[in-house]
Amino acid sequence: MADQVEQVVPLQDAIAEADAEAIGAAIEHLAEREELEEMLETLSVSERRQLHEVLGDEGLGELLEEIDPANAAAVLDVLPVADAADVLEQMSPDDAADVFAELETATAGEILTAMEPAEADELRELLAYPPDTAGGRMTPAFVSVSPNLNIEEAVGALQQISEEAETIYYVYVTDSADRLLGVLSLRDLVFSPPGTPISEITVPNVISVLDTADQEEAARLLMEEELLALPVVSADGRILGIITADDVDEIIEQETTEDIERLGGSLPLDEPYLRASSWLLVRKRVFWLLILFVAGGYTASVLSAFQDDLDRVVELAFFIPLLIGIGGNVGSQVTTTLVRAMGVGEVSLRDIGRVVRKETQTAVILALILAAAGFARAAFLGVGYDIAVVVAVTAGVIVLWAAFIAAMLPLVLRQLKADPAVVSAPLITTLVDGTGLLIYLSIARYILDAI
Amino acid sequence: MADQVEQVVPLQDAIAEADAEAIGAAIEHLAEREELEEMLETLSVSERRQLHEVLGDEGLGELLEEIDPANAAAVLDVLPVADAADVLEQMSPDDAADVFAELETATAGEILTAMEPAEADELRELLAYPPDTAGGRMTPAFVSVSPNLNIEEAVGALQQISEEAETIYYVYVTDSADRLLGVLSLRDLVFSPPGTPISEITVPNVISVLDTADQEEAARLLMEEELLALPVVSADGRILGIITADDVDEIIEQETTEDIERLGGSLPLDEPYLRASSWLLVRKRVFWLLILFVAGGYTASVLSAFQDDLDRVVELAFFIPLLIGIGGNVGSQVTTTLVRAMGVGEVSLRDIGRVVRKETQTAVILALILAAAGFARAAFLGVGYDIAVVVAVTAGVIVLWAAFIAAMLPLVLRQLKADPAVVSAPLITTLVDGTGLLIYLSIARYILDAI
Repeated sequence: MADQVEQVVPLQDAIAEADAEAIGAAIEHLAEREELEEMLETLSVSERRQLHEVLGDEGLGELLEEIDPANAAAVLDVLPVADAADVLEQMSPDDAADVFAELETATAGEILTAMEPAEADELRELLAYPPDTAGGRMTPAFVSVSPNLNIEEAVGALQQISEEAETIYYVYVTDSADRLLGVLSLRDLVFSPPGTPISEITVPNVISVLDTADQEEAARLLMEEELLALPVVSADGRILGIITADDVDEIIEQETTEDIERLGGSLPLDEPYLRASSWLLVRKRVFWLLILFVAGGYTASVLSAFQDDLDRVVELAFFIPLLIGIGGNVGSQVTTTLVRAMGVGEVSLRDIGRVVRKETQTAVILALILAAAGFARAAFLGVGYDIAVVVAVTAGVIVLWAAFIAAMLPLVLRQLKADPAVVSAPLITTLVDGTGLLIYLSIARYILDAI
Repeated sequence: MADQVEQVVPLQDAIAEADAEAIGAAIEHLAEREELEEMLETLSVSERRQLHEVLGDEGLGELLEEIDPANAAAVLDVLPVADAADVLEQMSPDDAADVFAELETATAGEILTAMEPAEADELRELLAYPPDTAGGRMTPAFVSVSPNLNIEEAVGALQQISEEAETIYYVYVTDSADRLLGVLSLRDLVFSPPGTPISEITVPNVISVLDTADQEEAARLLMEEELLALPVVSADGRILGIITADDVDEIIEQETTEDIERLGGSLPLDEPYLRASSWLLVRKRVFWLLILFVAGGYTASVLSAFQDDLDRVVELAFFIPLLIGIGGNVGSQVTTTLVRAMGVGEVSLRDIGRVVRKETQTAVILALILAAAGFARAAFLGVGYDIAVVVAVTAGVIVLWAAFIAAMLPLVLRQLKADPAVVSAPLITTLVDGTGLLIYLSIARYILDAI
């Protein structure tokens, strides 16, 4: 990530001079995609049109494939409908569909009408799937051959169609109804002797994913099976498209961002941060803030129940934030580590014994360290050794308690078949706040009465 | 992820019967890698040796490539040295190196001596790199041809070596000193007319990465350039190996886990959770716990400075946890979202204005909502309207303050060229705890005096 704004190459000037090479150089120089997008946003309507004239349908299409679909839609929006249709036709269908989905409905309809019928149909088909399904992710740009050809015939046929496919990852073998029979690799095509029938080098039982499956399932298959591309099939076995390995990063990044946002105590934004409106941020955040407020409200009840003790020994109040803070911090560490470990599949329910053993040992050591620190802090403040003892004991007990809650809650949720990722650091902190106060003031009452 | 333990197929029985097919079936049935690893851990020494005898060097090698290197090392450990060497020779060199790194030093030395010299050298070379560098990630199993051949000669040469390479992603073109001149694609090899000189279809200026570069840089290049494989080169331009696209997921997963652990307020574990000892967990957690303890310690000083006010109006103490909790929750939400957005490159320093505007608007609305909630909660507890007003005003101000701190701190760190990922949710919470108390008690003093 660039930490500094680079000196900006005058893209506008290059556009004004209609110099395709200078435009290319200016774009190359914007090393970061975000810089490119920012640059495009500053272009006037006439400059955007000029950009299309200079780069042509294909050049502009390539450029738009690289950037955020919403920004790409903003560029298409100012072009004449026929031109926008031509540019979309040049883009790979999955990217085109993403951009298309960002257009105003009226404009989108006009552009679809202006496109070649075949390309428009392809786009319509992709647009029919929710974006987080395998169907919504796939590109129809795969290549397939009939099992009845021999190698030379197949290579000949492939040469005809290879111009359209972005990259040939695998060559699929399909029957006349497009049903997926198997797969060839380019390696087999290169290294098999001439005349070999395709059926002979067809590897059957191809791993595929249903069009309606979650995109995460497709990503998992691509990773686990170390595939370059995964065919997407309909319920009746027809191949509809492929999802390629480079989609995996994007899918994982998206899902991980959701998990992290949940861990921080929000609902997932489902949108890039800069595109989310303040109103969306409010809605995603207020849900948990209010739940946590209500849950945290009982801290006030706990404290009011111990009003007499606080009246008598007001010094006890001094350590409330520090002690519940310790609990919150320990809880946040444990929850975050465990939820992540469960999220990537490192820890599952069968490991519950090992998790409990490990966290117990760790918590005992941390409890001793923080009890000592608590005693020192209280003694240093000069509140008397009785209160320092209370603070020390409470610090230790709260560490144990927070670690226990934070380790058990995700495991219990998993047991109940709920997503452990809803256990956020703020949720654990809030749970430990109230119970921690009860622990603190009960210990105080007991020890101070006893002394 | 499997939520239930599946009925376990008797792998032990299959091993006892020395039935390779039954073993294969038993392994296939263990759908999850973790189940497989757990199963292998339960095998006795003689069962592990039996497994090798039945599967052979290649079969066992394939199995060990799939599982955690530490577990794989435990299997090799019980084999005779010569057998362990044979199995390692069958594995892909990068996987072999990972397993090798987990062996006891003495055993490792013996096995290395027992291996074929060429394979042993390859392994030694890989082991020389730190595991998080491009050199530590690469596999030497790439294929290259001389630019002086024509297509038929190159295909012939490739046929000789293609047995060794795991998968052919790209065919590189190198001179006699192994310097990387360019790349061919299998597609070019298939579709170019016979007799074409290799130099003619060589694409020069291959994107590559230095062996000493961080693995993250390699992952970023693979993703951004949508490559299937990335050549790793020495400082003098010799190709040493390749990093393949399926490594990207692993690299990203590892780096993301580190970021998440930091967000939760720990130092990164740098190890899978279940393999981390309790002692490691303590060391990674205690650092921030003590820093936060010291930072949080001043909450006690703040409260003791306001001792007279608390003595006079003990009800003020009731709302301390609730109010600083609100601040911590808002801070956690903002920090988590922003640190993630900066981590994936969605937000950079140039966006500071947009971030501030967005977060300000959001915080103002949330402040109003939580002020109302605070008033209701205090009034409900029956502490008097003057205190309820104090709680309401404080709730609002703390939301604004927490959002401000949480949004600014990551941006300031980025400005100072520090990693914004060190700003954890617990750090923000602790910072807001002390300052929030100052805000609360100052507002209380002002309003209660005025009334």
